[in-house]
Amino acid sequence: MIGLKIAVDAMGGDNAPQAVVAGVERARDEFKDTEFLLFGVEDEIRKFLKDETRITITHTDEMIVMNDEPVRAIRRKKNASMVLAAKAVKDDEADAVFSCGNTGALLAAGLLIVGRIKGISRPGLLSTLPMFGESAGAFNLLDSGANAENKPEHLHQYAVLGKYYAQKVRQVENPRIGLLNNGTEPHKGSKVTQEAYKLLQEDPAINFVGNIESSAILNDVADVVVADGFTGNAVLKAIEGTASSVMHLVKDALLNSGFKGKIGALLLKPSLMELKEKMNQSQYGGAVLLGVKAPVVKAHGSSDELTVYYTLKQIHTMIEGKMIPDFVDYFSQHNLSTKTDK
Amino acid sequence: MIGLKIAVDAMGGDNAPQAVVAGVERARDEFKDTEFLLFGVEDEIRKFLKDETRITITHTDEMIVMNDEPVRAIRRKKNASMVLAAKAVKDDEADAVFSCGNTGALLAAGLLIVGRIKGISRPGLLSTLPMFGESAGAFNLLDSGANAENKPEHLHQYAVLGKYYAQKVRQVENPRIGLLNNGTEPHKGSKVTQEAYKLLQEDPAINFVGNIESSAILNDVADVVVADGFTGNAVLKAIEGTASSVMHLVKDALLNSGFKGKIGALLLKPSLMELKEKMNQSQYGGAVLLGVKAPVVKAHGSSDELTVYYTLKQIHTMIEGKMIPDFVDYFSQHNLSTKTDK
Repeated sequence: MIGLKIAVDAMGGDNAPQAVVAGVERARDEFKDTEFLLFGVEDEIRKFLKDETRITITHTDEMIVMNDEPVRAIRRKKNASMVLAAKAVKDDEADAVFSCGNTGALLAAGLLIVGRIKGISRPGLLSTLPMFGESAGAFNLLDSGANAENKPEHLHQYAVLGKYYAQKVRQVENPRIGLLNNGTEPHKGSKVTQEAYKLLQEDPAINFVGNIESSAILNDVADVVVADGFTGNAVLKAIEGTASSVMHLVKDALLNSGFKGKIGALLLKPSLMELKEKMNQSQYGGAVLLGVKAPVVKAHGSSDELTVYYTLKQIHTMIEGKMIPDFVDYFSQHNLSTKTDK
Repeated sequence: MIGLKIAVDAMGGDNAPQAVVAGVERARDEFKDTEFLLFGVEDEIRKFLKDETRITITHTDEMIVMNDEPVRAIRRKKNASMVLAAKAVKDDEADAVFSCGNTGALLAAGLLIVGRIKGISRPGLLSTLPMFGESAGAFNLLDSGANAENKPEHLHQYAVLGKYYAQKVRQVENPRIGLLNNGTEPHKGSKVTQEAYKLLQEDPAINFVGNIESSAILNDVADVVVADGFTGNAVLKAIEGTASSVMHLVKDALLNSGFKGKIGALLLKPSLMELKEKMNQSQYGGAVLLGVKAPVVKAHGSSDELTVYYTLKQIHTMIEGKMIPDFVDYFSQHNLSTKTDK
């Protein structure tokens, strides 16, 4: 029985539509209960599509490109593949939106087309990162960049959103929630983090483990770390940039190490490939805009078939786990907003 | 001729006073124009001191420890080694303060005892980080944690302070100044970064290269990156934590790679040691509180003799280069403050 429908922006990303189509077919073969609505240039999509089972194509020539100004693009390019995918959700024709395209535009589509859940002031972007440590695990960081400024109440909402996500998608029973701060002591930080600390500590529904410094964030200290979008984004990008720089340095050291070193590098290749796999984020899927009426999910612009597949799997888990109805219930019963945000 | 005097908190850090005394002796042997005023437990210091030339000891039993509350400790522990070192500067008996002790307390000593330079609202902590990239260079990040909140005008002041530092200490002729932000476009960011962008762009004395994302910060895009203290601290700690985690992963991969891998690791050892050296921050000295009336410099708590020496060398360069008198001149002639900050 077909119960789930995912709207797919087939034209977003560097490898579109080829990687998107291939990833969709892989997910389609695994999830027999799911239908995929593809939006994009029909001829281009058909060039790569092998089997149309549970895949429908809605043709459009219009596209949002990487340097489009997000809000303007969403408002003016009414027939862009990303906009049509978001509209399918708004019109109840699909349960979630997927895109590898312009992040800002997708966030704007989530906010302006899909729309906020009642009681949530500022939807936040949730990212999943591997721990890089002894633990094989991962953690969620939100807001990782949907907002440039946040109030303490928003961080409280992110704690609830992140908790449900970690439970439903990563099967963490009682997620440890940490607050990103510039010290571990309760009194540390800005006015926003000091006030957020109190809100989190006073909420019995939150398994609050206190302040987390970004130096410790990879050491399995929390399952969900909440932050204002500006700092969350800066920390996410610092982690990604540093991991990539250090791995490049290691690679250079191996390549420029003379004959003996080259033999050494050859002998170590299996271990280093394993390490690379451990640091690979794609198995965790894409970044999810949480707080809107359906999962709005962004995979990396350079996503390949496998990353698209993993992200569709992640979306499937969110829909199947009824994450959004649970958000709606929770926020209709609990008021975590300030007056100015309503 | 003895012209320079450095006040040293001999009791700060995990390896005090041994590492501090050894580092001081090494610096003393190199810088014949410099006298070192050591504050701490005289017997303990003498246990490690080989030669008293240009070294004086002021005995005190009192110490600030790592979990002391900074401001309270500075106010109550009037005879702590760190407080006496800062007072020596205030009383014109020394030109700079050095400590490996409690960072918060040292910042408080800088602000409350050494005192702000007129025209500077919020002194900022400057850190120096290696690029980790193809470039062998480094960059400065400030404020890296002296403040939890900053106004746009403070970031403008940091740009000037960082520019002089990069010129005087790192011999960068025309330092490229970047603004840490969550996107490269001029309109990006919070109200603080948007306004700071304008101030930096309009100041002809600043070689402003625009917004820098933390993912690109290690790629030789700027010599000085200015940030509010909360985000700067988060990014600094994320870079340090990630670099350390990734290097541990690499090490584990090498150690757990079986017999063939172990031979490989052995062959690669010289290259990996070289890499470790490249990532070593200690050659750049300590973190400097800029905007106070003398260099107030914090080396890492785990500093060894070499790190202490490098940091004293850095301090010597700042004093010799007359960095502080240049700050005083500049800020007496240029008003970069808002009314509320004066």
